[in-house]
Amino acid sequence: MRFRAMVLEKFNEPLRMKEFEVAELPEGSVLVRMLASGVCGSDVHIAKGEDPRTPVPIILGHEGVGEVIEVAGEKKDLNGEPIKPNDRIIWNRGIVCRKCYWCTVAKQPHLCPNRKVYGINMSCKDYPHLLGCYAEAVVLLPEVEVLKIPKNVDPASVVIASCSGATAMNALDSLSEPLAGKSVVIQGIGPLGIFAAVAAKSMGASIVAVIGGSPERLSVAKDFVDVLINRRELSEEERRRKILQLTHNRGADVVIEAAGDSRALMEGFNLLRRGGTYLIAGVAVPQDPIPVSVYENLVLKGITLRGVWVSDTKHLVQAVNVVTSHESLFSKLITHRFRLEEVNEALRYVEERRALKAVIHFE
Amino acid sequence: MRFRAMVLEKFNEPLRMKEFEVAELPEGSVLVRMLASGVCGSDVHIAKGEDPRTPVPIILGHEGVGEVIEVAGEKKDLNGEPIKPNDRIIWNRGIVCRKCYWCTVAKQPHLCPNRKVYGINMSCKDYPHLLGCYAEAVVLLPEVEVLKIPKNVDPASVVIASCSGATAMNALDSLSEPLAGKSVVIQGIGPLGIFAAVAAKSMGASIVAVIGGSPERLSVAKDFVDVLINRRELSEEERRRKILQLTHNRGADVVIEAAGDSRALMEGFNLLRRGGTYLIAGVAVPQDPIPVSVYENLVLKGITLRGVWVSDTKHLVQAVNVVTSHESLFSKLITHRFRLEEVNEALRYVEERRALKAVIHFE
Amino acid sequence: MRFRAMVLEKFNEPLRMKEFEVAELPEGSVLVRMLASGVCGSDVHIAKGEDPRTPVPIILGHEGVGEVIEVAGEKKDLNGEPIKPNDRIIWNRGIVCRKCYWCTVAKQPHLCPNRKVYGINMSCKDYPHLLGCYAEAVVLLPEVEVLKIPKNVDPASVVIASCSGATAMNALDSLSEPLAGKSVVIQGIGPLGIFAAVAAKSMGASIVAVIGGSPERLSVAKDFVDVLINRRELSEEERRRKILQLTHNRGADVVIEAAGDSRALMEGFNLLRRGGTYLIAGVAVPQDPIPVSVYENLVLKGITLRGVWVSDTKHLVQAVNVVTSHESLFSKLITHRFRLEEVNEALRYVEERRALKAVIHFE
Amino acid sequence: MRFRAMVLEKFNEPLRMKEFEVAELPEGSVLVRMLASGVCGSDVHIAKGEDPRTPVPIILGHEGVGEVIEVAGEKKDLNGEPIKPNDRIIWNRGIVCRKCYWCTVAKQPHLCPNRKVYGINMSCKDYPHLLGCYAEAVVLLPEVEVLKIPKNVDPASVVIASCSGATAMNALDSLSEPLAGKSVVIQGIGPLGIFAAVAAKSMGASIVAVIGGSPERLSVAKDFVDVLINRRELSEEERRRKILQLTHNRGADVVIEAAGDSRALMEGFNLLRRGGTYLIAGVAVPQDPIPVSVYENLVLKGITLRGVWVSDTKHLVQAVNVVTSHESLFSKLITHRFRLEEVNEALRYVEERRALKAVIHFE
Repeated sequence: MRFRAMVLEKFNEPLRMKEFEVAELPEGSVLVRMLASGVCGSDVHIAKGEDPRTPVPIILGHEGVGEVIEVAGEKKDLNGEPIKPNDRIIWNRGIVCRKCYWCTVAKQPHLCPNRKVYGINMSCKDYPHLLGCYAEAVVLLPEVEVLKIPKNVDPASVVIASCSGATAMNALDSLSEPLAGKSVVIQGIGPLGIFAAVAAKSMGASIVAVIGGSPERLSVAKDFVDVLINRRELSEEERRRKILQLTHNRGADVVIEAAGDSRALMEGFNLLRRGGTYLIAGVAVPQDPIPVSVYENLVLKGITLRGVWVSDTKHLVQAVNVVTSHESLFSKLITHRFRLEEVNEALRYVEERRALKAVIHFE
Repeated sequence: MRFRAMVLEKFNEPLRMKEFEVAELPEGSVLVRMLASGVCGSDVHIAKGEDPRTPVPIILGHEGVGEVIEVAGEKKDLNGEPIKPNDRIIWNRGIVCRKCYWCTVAKQPHLCPNRKVYGINMSCKDYPHLLGCYAEAVVLLPEVEVLKIPKNVDPASVVIASCSGATAMNALDSLSEPLAGKSVVIQGIGPLGIFAAVAAKSMGASIVAVIGGSPERLSVAKDFVDVLINRRELSEEERRRKILQLTHNRGADVVIEAAGDSRALMEGFNLLRRGGTYLIAGVAVPQDPIPVSVYENLVLKGITLRGVWVSDTKHLVQAVNVVTSHESLFSKLITHRFRLEEVNEALRYVEERRALKAVIHFE
Repeated sequence: MRFRAMVLEKFNEPLRMKEFEVAELPEGSVLVRMLASGVCGSDVHIAKGEDPRTPVPIILGHEGVGEVIEVAGEKKDLNGEPIKPNDRIIWNRGIVCRKCYWCTVAKQPHLCPNRKVYGINMSCKDYPHLLGCYAEAVVLLPEVEVLKIPKNVDPASVVIASCSGATAMNALDSLSEPLAGKSVVIQGIGPLGIFAAVAAKSMGASIVAVIGGSPERLSVAKDFVDVLINRRELSEEERRRKILQLTHNRGADVVIEAAGDSRALMEGFNLLRRGGTYLIAGVAVPQDPIPVSVYENLVLKGITLRGVWVSDTKHLVQAVNVVTSHESLFSKLITHRFRLEEVNEALRYVEERRALKAVIHFE
Repeated sequence: MRFRAMVLEKFNEPLRMKEFEVAELPEGSVLVRMLASGVCGSDVHIAKGEDPRTPVPIILGHEGVGEVIEVAGEKKDLNGEPIKPNDRIIWNRGIVCRKCYWCTVAKQPHLCPNRKVYGINMSCKDYPHLLGCYAEAVVLLPEVEVLKIPKNVDPASVVIASCSGATAMNALDSLSEPLAGKSVVIQGIGPLGIFAAVAAKSMGASIVAVIGGSPERLSVAKDFVDVLINRRELSEEERRRKILQLTHNRGADVVIEAAGDSRALMEGFNLLRRGGTYLIAGVAVPQDPIPVSVYENLVLKGITLRGVWVSDTKHLVQAVNVVTSHESLFSKLITHRFRLEEVNEALRYVEERRALKAVIHFE
């Protein structure tokens, strides 16, 4: 069998279509026909060589939903259900070693130093090549954790669960108390911010406020968010007053950075209540340091701040559940659909923030 | 000012209407005109003398929503907002000492051994008398924790938050992990069970199944519960198979006993997955012991079991938030409304399980 | 290479010495010369066929410390250190599948339904045969999690960390709050109870009281326990009063059942303070049900009760750390040392409770 | 009765001895003869007017142990024991309102915005004047939480539990997992750092390393710390390599800032393992901001960072327990003892870091 894929051969050059042959599959692996691949904001950075993990050549794309073509031997999903041809599936984009301190003792497998990720640090040079989602098919190695999903859900709506969604759930799952009755402020209104907003609301937050800069994105968000704050219309001080107003003058219980910009923290510290928690989930590449006033920002208010790095299997399962319970909402987020050969254009749309969520579809 | 109240003068006798005079209020206390009082299932037991805490004479009724008539001095609500005449309020039915080990060191104030509860263990013998909700007015002593509620919500819908609702939130708040993506089985479909179901769903549970025996109650529940199981139609073994089916053969992540019957545990143990959590929230009076197989029921499956006793202020706040976000649903639960002089009839309706939720209203 | 081992060929018959040949080792496995094997109380039950998991023929023994003879290929320990010949090691006695819901999503690998355990449910029928610790050598399969231990510690002292120790740590690690300043009562003074006592004390408990029946064991325990209660000298009511006295009349923050007898719970419930936690760690085989008064024992006091089943890698690491920090103490626990051919006698000593901790040594 | 006290009348001027008359005590208050008062490092800042909370005139001193002279009415300690004349006691230096969101709903009373603190923000202008510990006696208002302590412990050893000790326990108590088997690095070797080190070790940490600059303090610490690192002898890079060496190349599970210098964070980030926790406990006054690289310092490593502000009653109880279990050690920390009239000299010793712990004693 031969499948086409869009390959990054050199950083800062367009991805190019290539064809790969899949002969024999490793025992326990699954060959999957792609139904939808997400174009993640981080792909833009990866294509420019800004992510130090990435080798070339590589098939980019780490978010995907597909249909099983073939299973080499036996394979079960996370729920113990056997995987069969024609099953519709999603999978954990990362493969961890299951042997190191983080995988076994610390039970933080997402921090495994040996973590490999489809479309991020697995080159297409070696067999079985198809290790990224900008492709007609992927080969899921035996270690990949797979989850069956229902056929009545648009695959394009679900790809967000792979990466932004699972990362948002990692953030929210790390809270030491239930969100029930709590106030949450989200900085940023890209896929991560929107997912975090929907998830926070679906976990019982009484108030979810989102701060964003794009009127279109804010309008997409208006159905499921309690308060939308346009940072082009309100000054930082006005935004702070707005949040205080919403929270009986305390500040928010939880602030989630989903803007991808370290400088957001300087505003976020002032939106938190004493004893609040700050989840930093959007900063995915190195940036200039920001000035932090340790006493005022952290100590005096007894703040907990948590850096949220990627996600693990549990978060994927949680994210899929959020999507399938709010499908029409998530299908609205997909503002642009491209074909595989149009990936370079899709990346440009994402870079220029013209797309909220762009998805590659395969007819 | 004089107010009428229904008084329990002797156990097992009908409550009788009496009138009380309120002269001077203690500094910091609040005189509240009742808008709605809930008739709790436990009032039936209390009226029979089955709750060892209860003295006579007493004005029964521990669930209530009212409107402020007068504040003696200054009083703020839990959010720091000043309480003023005409404010609509709810309050923590229990008063704790704030000094003991539980109130200070253990931070489990609901377990304070000095806890006093309106309508349960505060007699009307002494001034200011009006210490139960089956009355035209109550006096909230200075120690009572008060929360303002919006005027656009039917007070009758909110009374459930006082007791069943807050207790359900105590149960759910004690979980060590978010409910997102988890399966929950609730045993019992009275006010506590229904509240727990709505709350679990609103906190992100992927599946909430309720086991109940009353077709009418099951039909009320059908809008907000994923699966309804009628225990008159399915045998215990069939119910277990149903739950296994819903949970990929694992059993539920969380089971909540809200049936008020210790024997429910013998079924519940078999509905839990390995590593699951069992919250016992409904058993509110002494009952015959049940046989527990320590190895099979608890150890081999690594079960966590938690006895849930009443609630504290945090749970009240959470419960009010659940009600105000699902108001139409909660207003549907109120199947019967009575006037103050009809309390004895209301109690009979509750005892005979003819009412799902009965509320006293004051025109 | 040939190694001798004591084999259980039929339940209720003496173990018999047999010899096994080890030819080629599976890639990633480790051949280990035993230095010390623990004789666990549960081996007595297993040898009688009371543990439904156990097949025959089998080499019993699930606690062990050894010295590496040979590594087939490469193998690292839990800290990422390469395993080499002559290294002294301990290992997680259980092998889990790393694929199921418990291993991945729930992060409770000790509850993996596919868990295999050396000396408990891995038969010696098939190659590489040496899958139990009552043997001159064991073969650790590639999936086994290994930890290097220092050479200056008596291997016999460390075997307890494999099973009782790791189980005690599973219990204590599950507490939702630090033990600092808390009171702990331990029921039972076998290896599990003693380990739990030392561990609780080393985690900051202010009072550790142990209830036991054997004066010799109590005297071994006296160096590291605050209060020893001989249940042959004090009645149940006197014991309860003693615990109340020690805890400002509250009862203990934590009670740990390490007696292996379900009936201990009926006493334990009365030793807990309101809001306390009960860890059931010792009941390892089916027993008659006990009567539980749900209201008095669990609900009214807001008790958390947790069934503790076996352990995972994290708990092994914690347990080894407890032993190496208190080595002289743990070496004192070893009241009897036997040679491999004397295992049947060792089992008899353990069954008759003549040994506190019996260990097989290999000169 | 008349008592002398050292009063700060103007910032940056020496404290002056004054006499105060105590006539009638408010009901529920306790008059206490001071046995020992701690001279806290923050008193140096307070005397200079660097703490914005502090009014003048004020009797400084917030750490103290004393003997009861008189109880006005009835008063119980945290364990419910009645307080009587001649009892030896310690108390929570802070008084919280018990009514606000933090005191009731959030259960974070140490963050109560209405918190008053003996010797920090309670002026001696008004009756009963004696509201700081640099005095022959203090009046504990009815709201003060009191704990009896044993008479066989040197009061001077216990004063540390009031402030540094309780703050260290607040830090350690906030960890989401037990310290058993974990590695801890402490930055700073003043009373806070030393207390944190002893407490971490007593809670089961396998490795406690302290980084400090004073050879004398390091030598005091050597008995109870696993590794002492002199930052005058090793460069920052060497210190980092040392910590990596101790932690199998991972970095520490927990780092505690107890140096009182924001810049310590820039080193501390590099000492943490992926997934580690950073507790910022020493920065108690405003300082220049530090540059934080959000991606490298926080996100990529999945770090949890927590600002630790003061303490509550629970932490006081835990701290007293740490001291009474390690009394000889804590008595060694007291390098200088002064009389009340020598407080200004004591403050100078503390400012010049000539004293490790300075204590005021009374005949």
